Amino acid sequence: LDDGDNEAARALAEPLHPADIADLFEQVPAHDRAGLAAALGDKLDAEVFAEMNEWVKSELLDLLDAGQVAEIAQALDTDDAVAILEDMDAGDAQDVLRAMTPEDRAAIEEALSYPEESAGRLMQRDLVAVPEDWTVAQVTAFLHERPDLQTDFWEIFVVDEGMLPVGTMRLSWLLTTPPDIAVADLMQRDQTLIPVDMDQEEVALRFQKYALISAAVVDLKGRLVGVITVDDIVHIIQEEAGEDILKLSGAGDGDINEPVFDTYKTRSRWLIVNLGTAMVSSSVIAAFAPTIEKFVVLAALTPIVASVGGNAGTQTMAVAVRALATNQLTEANTRRTIWRELRVAAANGLTVATLMGIGTALVFQNPMLGGVIAAAMLFNILVAGMAGVIVPVLLDRFNFDPAVSSSVFVTMTTDTMGFLGFLWLATRAGLTG
Amino acid sequence: LDDGDNEAARALAEPLHPADIADLFEQVPAHDRAGLAAALGDKLDAEVFAEMNEWVKSELLDLLDAGQVAEIAQALDTDDAVAILEDMDAGDAQDVLRAMTPEDRAAIEEALSYPEESAGRLMQRDLVAVPEDWTVAQVTAFLHERPDLQTDFWEIFVVDEGMLPVGTMRLSWLLTTPPDIAVADLMQRDQTLIPVDMDQEEVALRFQKYALISAAVVDLKGRLVGVITVDDIVHIIQEEAGEDILKLSGAGDGDINEPVFDTYKTRSRWLIVNLGTAMVSSSVIAAFAPTIEKFVVLAALTPIVASVGGNAGTQTMAVAVRALATNQLTEANTRRTIWRELRVAAANGLTVATLMGIGTALVFQNPMLGGVIAAAMLFNILVAGMAGVIVPVLLDRFNFDPAVSSSVFVTMTTDTMGFLGFLWLATRAGLTG
Repeated sequence: LDDGDNEAARALAEPLHPADIADLFEQVPAHDRAGLAAALGDKLDAEVFAEMNEWVKSELLDLLDAGQVAEIAQALDTDDAVAILEDMDAGDAQDVLRAMTPEDRAAIEEALSYPEESAGRLMQRDLVAVPEDWTVAQVTAFLHERPDLQTDFWEIFVVDEGMLPVGTMRLSWLLTTPPDIAVADLMQRDQTLIPVDMDQEEVALRFQKYALISAAVVDLKGRLVGVITVDDIVHIIQEEAGEDILKLSGAGDGDINEPVFDTYKTRSRWLIVNLGTAMVSSSVIAAFAPTIEKFVVLAALTPIVASVGGNAGTQTMAVAVRALATNQLTEANTRRTIWRELRVAAANGLTVATLMGIGTALVFQNPMLGGVIAAAMLFNILVAGMAGVIVPVLLDRFNFDPAVSSSVFVTMTTDTMGFLGFLWLATRAGLTG
Repeated sequence: LDDGDNEAARALAEPLHPADIADLFEQVPAHDRAGLAAALGDKLDAEVFAEMNEWVKSELLDLLDAGQVAEIAQALDTDDAVAILEDMDAGDAQDVLRAMTPEDRAAIEEALSYPEESAGRLMQRDLVAVPEDWTVAQVTAFLHERPDLQTDFWEIFVVDEGMLPVGTMRLSWLLTTPPDIAVADLMQRDQTLIPVDMDQEEVALRFQKYALISAAVVDLKGRLVGVITVDDIVHIIQEEAGEDILKLSGAGDGDINEPVFDTYKTRSRWLIVNLGTAMVSSSVIAAFAPTIEKFVVLAALTPIVASVGGNAGTQTMAVAVRALATNQLTEANTRRTIWRELRVAAANGLTVATLMGIGTALVFQNPMLGGVIAAAMLFNILVAGMAGVIVPVLLDRFNFDPAVSSSVFVTMTTDTMGFLGFLWLATRAGLTG
């Protein structure tokens, strides 16, 4: 379609929402993207860039010169412009900033001065703030006089003379209240203030917990400096919640648009770590070589004990990692949670061990072998239940991200304990073929 | 603290937000919750229930009679009341409905008539809709005359005579526009309409994609019947995105407040399935018993080949499951994604196989063994890269949830192919100790 007939491509894209055009760029093969950009011309506007996947975006921005990127950035809200600039090389970003108007440049440079993934980078500086002693009528008149207000807003912030926030009004309250009521009587005094250096994950949890639509951002002195709205937070909630699964499996960013070499770097590092831990745990098997030589069936059964233990550990670990990420698992209930997981592990272990023990005893006509594998499985599932909670909790306590490295430790524990428990018991029981 | 001094407990809870009081109930051990409820008295209001974890909520609701639950449900928005009733036993829910006023009862029964997890259960029926031919002044006057409007609203819907939605106005537009402008000239005609039977996951993706604050819900005839606001969606986005990790590991609901027996049922079912697949793949090892008897070191090396392959498969699978859940992986780019993952797998495979091959050759002074394990690892990582995309995509194509069962198939494939590739090559190469 888009080889040749640019008019037709434009006509098709005409009725689409910027988010849909951004999707189109993501779905098209990489080598067709420049052609599609040329065909769409000014339909590829700033809003489309704001919606685009970061890898596809930086690919397209590489085709533009600093002046064009500056134009796009200036058409966007501060937070979206920052998102474009923070993904660029430092040198290129400087060129773009130099091509911008002084005010826009100052706003973006200020945002970039806050740490990455902090509230300061997410916030929008355009906001409506009114003094406490106004009436509803004054606020309404003030809003009608401000055609320069470009972004939509959902709440009005009430501040004192020092720009310290004292309350919030939702627009629906303003619209349903008689004009002579004072702002001070209408506003809600309890409000969730976001410090400018708060991590975006924490900001997202606040929005979710208190069902916020927008929230005031304050600087270190408590002065109102910006506003964060829920539509920017929705992406973060989605990303942060979905990220755990990628981190636990060592898949890094896990974006299907990421360049192959970047993906290779992240994943191979993880696989090499896993190679190391697999060698450690299988050295246990090597140590029991004389037992296996006497009874080779053990070589086939050993991985089963480790595998089921690994699965049980992963279940507990997934629950613990999610509970930590959503602030459900705290110091107050850690011991209770470990105790809970141990009870679940005991029930699971008894079930699986009984099945496996009876099955093995029957298939190999060897009740002793059945008893040994059942005992080893029960032991390993109990170990898995403990490790599945304790490893992520300890990592979290020492300020490591539990999603990133829990699975290495948990799997190494269940593999080693599975191999060791089974082969040690088999040796003690003097099993031979 | 809360043994005895109820006054003190109340005083401490006084300044807390309902969401914080709900958290308090979750953090307190199960046997103290009834006591805390008694201590807090009417501070444990409907809003607190709306914010509470579902297991803790149903535990507390069990202590109340139908009349008390009905009172709580009536104080809430339809969607929150529905959330309380849908978790109850059918009989208890009937008792509660019978204790409610006829209008509230009708509203909730209607919501319950829609499928679980559909837009119909999430929507709020209170909304503001105005005709197209009004002016801004008329809308403003109308809003001031409606003190009965209980919930906050963020957008006003414009409808024709048949209640079909024709446009939307954000409140900030209304507040900054001169009173004589017609609604028809102010409203946005392009709008995202949510069919009443749409699945909540799909609703959440729309909200996210188009950065919506609220959206009109329409019945099968296209008439406006309700509104969904983003604060209800935020929970769903968080849940749905976080759920994948729990499903992939077979941890079910994965809530640390779930009763132990329910958790046991979900997880043991999964462990038994895994026991089965582990037996299938280790039957491959049993088939090669003669080879292992001749060279027992193979018993220790086999699990390493399977383990690294399993990790590589999990990485690809995690990426594919996330990309499917966020609509990034579609029919248009499936082949491209498989090709991409194969290239990543080739690069990872070469790296890991080289390391392992050289290491094994040196440690065991056996270059042939090094070559065999390197070839088997490269092969298994390529298999893992393919299976990691193809399994979730096929499950999705046939309308199974890829997060639920992908890992069973992928792990079985990488285990089997790891065991088979290595032991078959070792046999062919005639390796002996």
